[in-house]
Amino acid sequence: MRLRNKPWAREKLDAHPQYVVLNPEQEKGQWNKTFNNDQPIHIEVGTGKGQFVTGMARQNPHINYIGVELYESVIVTALDRLIEADLPNLKLLNVDGAELMNYFEKGEVDRVYLNFSDPWPKTRHAKRRLTYKSFLSLYESLMPDGGEVHFKTDNQGLFEYSLKSFSEYGMLLTFVSLDLHNSGFEGNVMTEYEEKFSAKGQRIYRSEAKFQPRP
Amino acid sequence: MRLRNKPWAREKLDAHPQYVVLNPEQEKGQWNKTFNNDQPIHIEVGTGKGQFVTGMARQNPHINYIGVELYESVIVTALDRLIEADLPNLKLLNVDGAELMNYFEKGEVDRVYLNFSDPWPKTRHAKRRLTYKSFLSLYESLMPDGGEVHFKTDNQGLFEYSLKSFSEYGMLLTFVSLDLHNSGFEGNVMTEYEEKFSAKGQRIYRSEAKFQPRP
Ligand SMILES: C[S@@+](CC[C@H](N)C(=O)[O-])C[C@H]1O[C@@H](n2cnc3c(N)ncnc32)[C@H](O)[C@@H]1O
Ligand SMILES: C[S@@+](CC[C@H](N)C(=O)[O-])C[C@H]1O[C@@H](n2cnc3c(N)ncnc32)[C@H](O)[C@@H]1O
Repeated sequence: MRLRNKPWAREKLDAHPQYVVLNPEQEKGQWNKTFNNDQPIHIEVGTGKGQFVTGMARQNPHINYIGVELYESVIVTALDRLIEADLPNLKLLNVDGAELMNYFEKGEVDRVYLNFSDPWPKTRHAKRRLTYKSFLSLYESLMPDGGEVHFKTDNQGLFEYSLKSFSEYGMLLTFVSLDLHNSGFEGNVMTEYEEKFSAKGQRIYRSEAKFQPRP
Repeated sequence: MRLRNKPWAREKLDAHPQYVVLNPEQEKGQWNKTFNNDQPIHIEVGTGKGQFVTGMARQNPHINYIGVELYESVIVTALDRLIEADLPNLKLLNVDGAELMNYFEKGEVDRVYLNFSDPWPKTRHAKRRLTYKSFLSLYESLMPDGGEVHFKTDNQGLFEYSLKSFSEYGMLLTFVSLDLHNSGFEGNVMTEYEEKFSAKGQRIYRSEAKFQPRP
């Protein structure tokens, strides 16, 4: 994602504590209090400009959503959307996805979404892919047994890699679409990247994989 | 596969006992004797006209191959190919793949190939797909621990289904290509259907899945 210099972004994020989580370490173990209810919590890692997570929060008021994005200059656009939509069940979290264990107790997250994650096509960068085994282990540590990772991408290589990675980690593949937009799948909420790539005629791939109980 | 009436097919098969296994029940537990060596045995279920299995046998003289095909009128073309190629490491077996337990001991088969298997797109016909769980269980019962199923198809729905089926059965996905012919994969031997569909611009999907040791 191209980063433009937005020195005012930090200031703007700080000015909206009802939408942007400002002291995430302090939320660990008490997200229910933060949302002020006991609804399930679904997070999107690498939420970008927030179109998906905002659409999902609008579509599913009985689920709480958290959009996790590393860059201030990007998440600030998600904040604009959220200010406009004014949804009580969506928060934005400006942290590194690799450090989520600092912000959630085991079992606090019910589902993880990954959408159009950076592909890191070089083998020597495989560890940076958000479906690499160390990330899967991290997601597992946030969720109860049977937690799910829902993944969309237009990137063929990343999708092939991720199916193998889920399987090697011992996850169960419960959904695979090799052409989501021609599959009859209902209720799809498009991300920014999904709109861009599908407009160019690219296929969209989608999978759901479930962590298995450990013996 | 369209079936033409070929009353002479049975006769021709019977006339070539060096290539066509005529009393397969009697081979159970003694395929090494039949091939007259201890090489690994790979079978293709639904071998059709035999282009793949003949090409593989030529490419890999230290592996024994068996092409399994239900229809006399189809396998007789594979026989023509084999007569011409005269390969000592290839046999043809004119039986129903669903009954392979009658012809092989546990551990006698080292790998199963499935190529362009009939897709049976209707959900109520799922049991007939050669990647349905009852077939996976059958293949597992022929192979030692860690046996593999190598699968190619042009059919998107069958491929999506099969990845889930392998995973649900507890198999490990060790290879996934969503566009085999543009993947740099080496040593691919094309089947008849593969040539036909790829000439039409269809993508070819390929996977490898491995049975896991049972606890
Ligand atoms: C290619 S964009 C996709 C954005 C959005 N999900 C979509 O589909 O339109 C990937 C996003 O993930 C973010 N990202 C990458 N690694 C991350 C990490 N470790 N933690 C949080 N966000 C990350 C990037 O900053 C970028 O905004
Ligand atoms: C679509 S054709 C593909 C042939 C060949 N593998 C190829 O890729 O060109 C499927 C073949 O599988 C055979 N077949 C289907 N079910 C079978 C079964 N239960 N046992 C043996 N052969 C079967 C069919 O007769 C047919 O020849």
